[in-house]
Amino acid sequence: MSNALPKIAWIGLGIMGSPMAENLIKAGYQVTGYTLEQAKLDRLAAAGGTPAASIAEAVREADVVITMVPASPQVEAVAYGPEGILANARPGTLLIDMSSITPQTSVDLAKAAGEKGIRVLDAPVSGGEAGAIEAVLSIMVGGERADFDAALPILQALGRTIVLCGPHGSGQTVKAANQLIVAVNIQACAEAVVFLEKSGVDLAAALEVLNGGLAGSTVLTRKKDNFLNRDFRPGFRIDLHHKDMGIVTDAARNVGAALPVGAVVANLVAALRAQGDGGLDHSALLRGVERLSGLKVED
Amino acid sequence: MSNALPKIAWIGLGIMGSPMAENLIKAGYQVTGYTLEQAKLDRLAAAGGTPAASIAEAVREADVVITMVPASPQVEAVAYGPEGILANARPGTLLIDMSSITPQTSVDLAKAAGEKGIRVLDAPVSGGEAGAIEAVLSIMVGGERADFDAALPILQALGRTIVLCGPHGSGQTVKAANQLIVAVNIQACAEAVVFLEKSGVDLAAALEVLNGGLAGSTVLTRKKDNFLNRDFRPGFRIDLHHKDMGIVTDAARNVGAALPVGAVVANLVAALRAQGDGGLDHSALLRGVERLSGLKVED
Repeated sequence: MSNALPKIAWIGLGIMGSPMAENLIKAGYQVTGYTLEQAKLDRLAAAGGTPAASIAEAVREADVVITMVPASPQVEAVAYGPEGILANARPGTLLIDMSSITPQTSVDLAKAAGEKGIRVLDAPVSGGEAGAIEAVLSIMVGGERADFDAALPILQALGRTIVLCGPHGSGQTVKAANQLIVAVNIQACAEAVVFLEKSGVDLAAALEVLNGGLAGSTVLTRKKDNFLNRDFRPGFRIDLHHKDMGIVTDAARNVGAALPVGAVVANLVAALRAQGDGGLDHSALLRGVERLSGLKVED
Repeated sequence: MSNALPKIAWIGLGIMGSPMAENLIKAGYQVTGYTLEQAKLDRLAAAGGTPAASIAEAVREADVVITMVPASPQVEAVAYGPEGILANARPGTLLIDMSSITPQTSVDLAKAAGEKGIRVLDAPVSGGEAGAIEAVLSIMVGGERADFDAALPILQALGRTIVLCGPHGSGQTVKAANQLIVAVNIQACAEAVVFLEKSGVDLAAALEVLNGGLAGSTVLTRKKDNFLNRDFRPGFRIDLHHKDMGIVTDAARNVGAALPVGAVVANLVAALRAQGDGGLDHSALLRGVERLSGLKVED
């Protein structure tokens, strides 16, 4: 990289990727983008970016490649093979994978990329679509300190809390822990809500006083109205949280960490999906507790 | 009650009761106290209160009686019988029970007291010894609105967030929900901590970034150092949380509310106690997860 801003290739322009790439353009970066959907490429062009016809074309001139795709198989699809990032990026390129995937996939990718002289950071995010648009994401990073330092100005155009958590895969591990805590805490609140309502308590008053004490949480703050109004429009879909509970369950098994409650909640998330609620916000865990408690739940 | 401040009888001068009674004295109230321990009565006298030789003597001249004792059996012991509050307080007295007990005990007490013309509020608190000393407790109240309004100036000398949650027993129900959410959230954090450490992640960095996102909570803020330093000095003892998990489990069964995760956590709290950790802070749930994960846990 010269003193000029690094040239960026962005792979994956979905709900998260599009506003993030646009924030880099606003910050003055030259962004070349690739994604499967033409409408998203048109949106990038309208925002001042350069659409590419292929991954190879997007990454060939880039100093930094950023990937933001749904899951491990998509990361592998864009990284490997003759048309992929590793085969077409220049040695010395920094690859920042911001997708939420298994830690092992990140470790494997760093190793394969390293053999081609490509440096890698895993840098999954928390904060959702709103956090992406407002550039206030939490970004959990795994990899080498020098690469983190090089990436920091770019990441600062995308998020607010940006922390190097350890070696390759550590960002994914922390993201997995994040999804574990969030799901368990939503489930705790859902059980409390059903208990409070069946007990004839004023729910709005109860949630207010609960959030003021040791039971208080960001989940309770952000999801209180979802619970009170039974409003389960996403937000963050149960289908995605199901994927993430699979990641954390699997990763914890690999390192021999017991998740006695995480395992139950992974099951409850899977059950909710089986009950047809996969497209709802994860606060819809309340519906699962309501069904278990014999309450009528609207379709 | 005249225009002068109501005369208060305080029953139960333990870790919570002593500083709370002293806060009322500081606020200008005349407080007559009774408890089983002479040293606590001496402390009350030194603070400007009046020790009584019996419950009957303490409550006879009182406008308001406040009880703060460990559990349901102690509330029943001080309320009922010829030497108890109901037999010795004047009709028109307001009895505020700030103990954490079963909602049903509060409902029964309100009924029995009502037959003697004594009004009752259940008003359990959250915030611990520090909250009691600093008069910043959260106070969850059940009972009649008029009695709540009458009690409010007194409660404002003890706490900061003071909410009427519904009819008799509702304060206890919300406290039970509080203890449910707190225990489940501590367990979630404990599972995350073991998973993160076994994965080789920088735990302090990870907890920082986790607390900045949707996984953030008052538990993570207040207990982070306990987790990082394996410091499990109470704080709030597992023995007491075990009692509270019994209350919420029982109360939820009574109203037909399912607690699929709460039930598991109640078991994990009970197991920790069986393992000899009942005297430790509830953040010691981490020790249970460590044992399950094959980690050496110091005695």
